[in-house]
Amino acid sequence: MVIIFGADAKVNEISHVKESLIKKGFEIHESKGVDHTVIGVIGDTLKLDIRDMQVLPGVADAYRISSPYKLVSREFKKENTVINIKDVEIGGKEIVIMAGPCAVESEEQVFTIAEAVSKAGAKILRGGAFKPRTSPYAFQGLGEEGLKILRNAADKYGMIVITEVMDKDQIDLIYKYTDIFQVGARNMQNFSFLKTLGKTDKPIMLKRGISATIKEWLMSAEYILSGGNHEVIFCERGIRTYETYTRNTLDISAIPIVKKLSHLPIISDPSHGTGIRDKVLPMARASVAAGADGLMIEVHNNPEAALSDGAQSLFPQQFDELMEQCRAIAGVLNRNIADRKE
Amino acid sequence: MVIIFGADAKVNEISHVKESLIKKGFEIHESKGVDHTVIGVIGDTLKLDIRDMQVLPGVADAYRISSPYKLVSREFKKENTVINIKDVEIGGKEIVIMAGPCAVESEEQVFTIAEAVSKAGAKILRGGAFKPRTSPYAFQGLGEEGLKILRNAADKYGMIVITEVMDKDQIDLIYKYTDIFQVGARNMQNFSFLKTLGKTDKPIMLKRGISATIKEWLMSAEYILSGGNHEVIFCERGIRTYETYTRNTLDISAIPIVKKLSHLPIISDPSHGTGIRDKVLPMARASVAAGADGLMIEVHNNPEAALSDGAQSLFPQQFDELMEQCRAIAGVLNRNIADRKE
Amino acid sequence: MVIIFGADAKVNEISHVKESLIKKGFEIHESKGVDHTVIGVIGDTLKLDIRDMQVLPGVADAYRISSPYKLVSREFKKENTVINIKDVEIGGKEIVIMAGPCAVESEEQVFTIAEAVSKAGAKILRGGAFKPRTSPYAFQGLGEEGLKILRNAADKYGMIVITEVMDKDQIDLIYKYTDIFQVGARNMQNFSFLKTLGKTDKPIMLKRGISATIKEWLMSAEYILSGGNHEVIFCERGIRTYETYTRNTLDISAIPIVKKLSHLPIISDPSHGTGIRDKVLPMARASVAAGADGLMIEVHNNPEAALSDGAQSLFPQQFDELMEQCRAIAGVLNRNIADRKE
Amino acid sequence: MVIIFGADAKVNEISHVKESLIKKGFEIHESKGVDHTVIGVIGDTLKLDIRDMQVLPGVADAYRISSPYKLVSREFKKENTVINIKDVEIGGKEIVIMAGPCAVESEEQVFTIAEAVSKAGAKILRGGAFKPRTSPYAFQGLGEEGLKILRNAADKYGMIVITEVMDKDQIDLIYKYTDIFQVGARNMQNFSFLKTLGKTDKPIMLKRGISATIKEWLMSAEYILSGGNHEVIFCERGIRTYETYTRNTLDISAIPIVKKLSHLPIISDPSHGTGIRDKVLPMARASVAAGADGLMIEVHNNPEAALSDGAQSLFPQQFDELMEQCRAIAGVLNRNIADRKE
Repeated sequence: MVIIFGADAKVNEISHVKESLIKKGFEIHESKGVDHTVIGVIGDTLKLDIRDMQVLPGVADAYRISSPYKLVSREFKKENTVINIKDVEIGGKEIVIMAGPCAVESEEQVFTIAEAVSKAGAKILRGGAFKPRTSPYAFQGLGEEGLKILRNAADKYGMIVITEVMDKDQIDLIYKYTDIFQVGARNMQNFSFLKTLGKTDKPIMLKRGISATIKEWLMSAEYILSGGNHEVIFCERGIRTYETYTRNTLDISAIPIVKKLSHLPIISDPSHGTGIRDKVLPMARASVAAGADGLMIEVHNNPEAALSDGAQSLFPQQFDELMEQCRAIAGVLNRNIADRKE
Repeated sequence: MVIIFGADAKVNEISHVKESLIKKGFEIHESKGVDHTVIGVIGDTLKLDIRDMQVLPGVADAYRISSPYKLVSREFKKENTVINIKDVEIGGKEIVIMAGPCAVESEEQVFTIAEAVSKAGAKILRGGAFKPRTSPYAFQGLGEEGLKILRNAADKYGMIVITEVMDKDQIDLIYKYTDIFQVGARNMQNFSFLKTLGKTDKPIMLKRGISATIKEWLMSAEYILSGGNHEVIFCERGIRTYETYTRNTLDISAIPIVKKLSHLPIISDPSHGTGIRDKVLPMARASVAAGADGLMIEVHNNPEAALSDGAQSLFPQQFDELMEQCRAIAGVLNRNIADRKE
Repeated sequence: MVIIFGADAKVNEISHVKESLIKKGFEIHESKGVDHTVIGVIGDTLKLDIRDMQVLPGVADAYRISSPYKLVSREFKKENTVINIKDVEIGGKEIVIMAGPCAVESEEQVFTIAEAVSKAGAKILRGGAFKPRTSPYAFQGLGEEGLKILRNAADKYGMIVITEVMDKDQIDLIYKYTDIFQVGARNMQNFSFLKTLGKTDKPIMLKRGISATIKEWLMSAEYILSGGNHEVIFCERGIRTYETYTRNTLDISAIPIVKKLSHLPIISDPSHGTGIRDKVLPMARASVAAGADGLMIEVHNNPEAALSDGAQSLFPQQFDELMEQCRAIAGVLNRNIADRKE
Repeated sequence: MVIIFGADAKVNEISHVKESLIKKGFEIHESKGVDHTVIGVIGDTLKLDIRDMQVLPGVADAYRISSPYKLVSREFKKENTVINIKDVEIGGKEIVIMAGPCAVESEEQVFTIAEAVSKAGAKILRGGAFKPRTSPYAFQGLGEEGLKILRNAADKYGMIVITEVMDKDQIDLIYKYTDIFQVGARNMQNFSFLKTLGKTDKPIMLKRGISATIKEWLMSAEYILSGGNHEVIFCERGIRTYETYTRNTLDISAIPIVKKLSHLPIISDPSHGTGIRDKVLPMARASVAAGADGLMIEVHNNPEAALSDGAQSLFPQQFDELMEQCRAIAGVLNRNIADRKE
């Protein structure tokens, strides 16, 4: 950390800051310029709050030189983390596709979709059994019944399962059925929950909070890694901006940025990221082109029952088209997506 | 809900939408215009997702006429809700002041601050025993030890206690020590947590999420009220914008808006709302002038130990000045703030 | 326009609104529901301000059914607009690349860059002769001298020219040298300037304002088209969000959205959109994958003089790589980018 | 400016940066820490772009110590600037009220409003003769005819005039009628326009751009001051956020911040800042309580013709109430607002 004193800082203000830091166990390296005195603070500066430093008497500004996270950073681990679950590899050369319904509604629905998406090349089955809803009066999910359906459908079609865990007290139950825990955007800074997940031994997909900076997102992953679980997958799912045409603004640039700052894999969710069915395909292509390690796509089975489906879910034939186009773009980047099974 | 069909909507598209809604138990009122057919949907439309309607074939747009929340609305209850806790009244004529340290650090610290702020007219003692921190390496609070200190200090100086509960499994413990549960911004959409809190019998102060719309905030309160607990206090604490000078942008306009839409009290937190000590006073005045029912202010005791204090905490003498000025402004609005005790 | 009256609207409030609209020449189509009266307003509703309607006594809400723009919309013109300038076609099957320095600095600089980028397949030479700068103390451009250099370099290497016009009184001068007028983000809502440009006969590239909604952007183009100039090219260049890692957040989803709402071409500017050199390549690929009709890329010539170059400019060899990868992705979408000249 | 090199910076990278800066005339002050080398750059660093420094090879980060503006800063001029126009003083002890219609529509309208607002204590008459409208099809103002009406009404009721100038070529015309030039939010970064205004000798009220940071706003004022005109009044009018209930989010905290950073006066425009009539009064009170030097309020004359009035305009009796309440709050801050004339 570097602390810069103002041109009008008093000598005792500077020494007060230095002594306080030394008392806290930091080493100080001072440099007097023409107008400004600058000190470097060496030690475990992760414990210091930059804003506390900035308001000290005499201080003009303070900056953090090293990143505020450690275990998630590229500096800590140079090579990409590849997560292996059964025969699926996330973060490797292959771009992995997660697909399925928004919410588990019935056995028939999930099996139909699972058959369609696995045939098209998806390896991971998604579906919500517990649904976070802004309204207490909306459908909240099938619960354990939904988890069973998901597990059985995945097993039948040779897929693995990802499903959202919303709460500490759901962890044990969901652990029995899922292969990957999904943490939703609204829980990205539920720190006590993240700490508990850090003690589990299944991979965790951490969605970006709707207004989380990339730095905050990496800090949240640090909570999980510091608990002992190093298998975290980031998922960009759109941020809140002033634009109202889309539900969220999918921040595609987060993909190459996270790939640079961290060794962990990152996937993209263009379904939630746009909230509009006919924008999912171009944004899926763009995500792959930008370097995503995977995609999460909502698909529903029965176009005729559209009233009960999400505005952003694809019809199976649209999903086939998406897979085909993304496969071709993956090739351009020297990566691949699993082939369609005939 | 009103659904408007496009000029090029097909007859079978319109009848498909109507039939689906009728099957779901809604009543339909149709009106054919020159270009557009418009249908009104009558029934429990809280269950319908507006975005699902907007993407149906033939539909040009869909709008919700009634608000998506019920129990929190002014339509449901015309008169202001006044919450009584011991001799403190929140939401009445008096503007109630909550003050105390950001985090409970020691008995001496809390007692010193409690004495100062209660003398200045604050009736509610705040202080965190469990701290949500973006970094897993930062100080996380004293836990139950902190709760005891807070309770004892409040009792000694005739105050009541408010403290943050971060997690379902903390509720029972904190219940023993606090008078009001504080729900932090990051938990505003932790719905399963809100449901559980809705079954407790102590008032709940619900902070606005850092990027929550006013509508989402009211919906979150609806979760608590629909669980049976009708004593919710809103707390505006700043929203995330592109501006970087302040930590957050305190949305003062949310105060009169919430007062109009809901019968529940709303207070303002200019300490977190600005993140800068010397902006707390003007923003506290502005909050009172805009109609806030209370203020939450961070105060710390020992200016010499500033390194361990928040950038936004006031010194006791600054808090005195704040109380004096806000008291005068309250008078202009025909309200009052408790007198200073000599 | 649809106006919905509240359940508690008075009869004279409804008739007041209706009469006022009829007096203004609109036709009214009324429909009485159980709770709500709804009226459709037929006529030139582009003249009505939706917010004025929303606050009328008795009105619960008001919505615009038709879009607030006309000439730029797909409804007005179904097929894509293709703009022809000499042998360059914008908005057709070929994805057109604009490249060059941020600012024109010298003849040598521009000729060197023009040679490199034209060889790599760029057809349009960009470069600023008048620079909008946030600081009055920063370099403001070479002026006419810069325009001459740009024109000569483009002519020598068989390219056409695009350059920014910042002000009405620069139009005549710049007209002599450029093939396309570029309107910067800060001028997107300089309506009197747009009207003047609408009377010129050269194509106009309209950058999106840093916090402009897509609707406002289309409205600004409407100003140009309604003046008689129908050759407008949209340019997405990033919007302002709370994220600070990137300079702006490039809103890739704007590309398919504008393509759907309008018949006019849209290109992407990943250089300004990210502000970071090593994010330009992935975001260029993503833009092409999302359906952009072109790219605008900053390239500088002399890596050794990096101090005077923009943080976001590519080195020529990076630009070659960008062209190669984007060309391959264009192929996937059944489009093409001009070949490299050997 | 301080430049910090990374722990893995090479010796020749550091010397390359230093030499380049020395060649540009800067003085360098170097300090070697354990891990990081830090250099201070002394000289006219306003000419350097911080982002260009940040991407140089070897550089970890770069920070500006001094503010990027000069003439507008408190460091440059400690005491408040007070602007005198006839008998009106802006920036002094008195809080000055500007009021009038959004757009000048007729002589009768303006005279009626001017009479009402001047009686209530407003000293400055506002009204648009040239209106910036997002739609080319909307009413664009009465032009010079409107300016005459405004001037005559102000003269009759002993007021001074403020009106918007949208374009360089309107300056001479408007100069003849107005006392203060108003620069709208959309022109805040129209730098060539600001430069021209910097050469006029009438005060300029500079509205904050809808997504301008406070720093950018001060930089824009610097353009005017550096041209020779030192009489600039800032006007906070709301920023664009994700919240849709209000038209904009009035950033009240900008008031004390600008007062601290600059010696120039700042006023608040709660009419545009909220866009909702019944939120204007509480936000006007809040603005005064936060320390604003003035208010700009939209008032219209004829409630019965409400269809043609802005959603945010007050009725005269609402304006009277606003004046009375703000006067009382001004008293609390030891300031005053002109008395009502009986």
